[in-house]
Amino acid sequence: MSDRPAAAIDMDLRPGEVTTTLPAAADAAIYFIGTIHTPWKTRSECPRRGSPDGPECCIVLNEQWRPALTGLDTHRRIQVLYWMHRARRDLVLQCPRGVEAPIGTFALRSPVRPNPVASSIVTLERIEGTTLVVRGLDCIDGTPVVDIKPERTIHADSPAHA
Amino acid sequence: MSDRPAAAIDMDLRPGEVTTTLPAAADAAIYFIGTIHTPWKTRSECPRRGSPDGPECCIVLNEQWRPALTGLDTHRRIQVLYWMHRARRDLVLQCPRGVEAPIGTFALRSPVRPNPVASSIVTLERIEGTTLVVRGLDCIDGTPVVDIKPERTIHADSPAHA
Repeated sequence: MSDRPAAAIDMDLRPGEVTTTLPAAADAAIYFIGTIHTPWKTRSECPRRGSPDGPECCIVLNEQWRPALTGLDTHRRIQVLYWMHRARRDLVLQCPRGVEAPIGTFALRSPVRPNPVASSIVTLERIEGTTLVVRGLDCIDGTPVVDIKPERTIHADSPAHA
Repeated sequence: MSDRPAAAIDMDLRPGEVTTTLPAAADAAIYFIGTIHTPWKTRSECPRRGSPDGPECCIVLNEQWRPALTGLDTHRRIQVLYWMHRARRDLVLQCPRGVEAPIGTFALRSPVRPNPVASSIVTLERIEGTTLVVRGLDCIDGTPVVDIKPERTIHADSPAHA
């Protein structure tokens, strides 16, 4: 099992950056539930941070998850978790551009991290079948989706631990 | 590869709940980076939602990630992603207690979802070695950690796509 496409992973290191050896075995499995489509084909084209005034983007879920969208249209703001599939995973210290001393991976929101799960709050414009049209994303076209959930639950007795 | 401990996964179904068949192969691998310690030993003991006034909880990271904490102490609010290891993953429609009609998994923040990644914003009280002392969690003792990041980046040139 490996992230795909492996060939596209950016492996450049900057001076001062430090790596670790990732564990030999995985602890849990991620199933991609769909794909995000945005206007940005490369990371350098992506906006630095998604904006509610940004362009419409599409989250296309795999057909088997269609029933899992039931009731989502009552929510205006949703949380999207996605997999930053082009980032290396073994850096503990990173040197963002314009920063003098190396910074720890967990003190950054960089895509480079042991588990490259991104979290964005977006505005849900509408749902068309298994496609969610949203604003506020900033990721590259083709990014795999990991999870969709309302920003807040409206069901008083439903657990909100997620 | 499987989530652990498999024996502890809650497989009860309520009337009206609908399952799907999960994909045969995983798309990506998660490495647990540490363990969360809370006062709550069972899910029924957990608070419904974490509070900044809640008890101190500890996030104990594996030793290899110690350098990755560099600079995190300048942040007061951090985002914790963790793995809800006791939840089944194959429900598309769920019936939370007190709700009449089944609701889609992606319209709930229930732990039961295809990729059981929870996201919580917590208050960072202090860091002691590889242990983060925080308030605001609501998960069960022993929960595996997936990621730690500041709620917002303070480095102007650092990408914030995560």
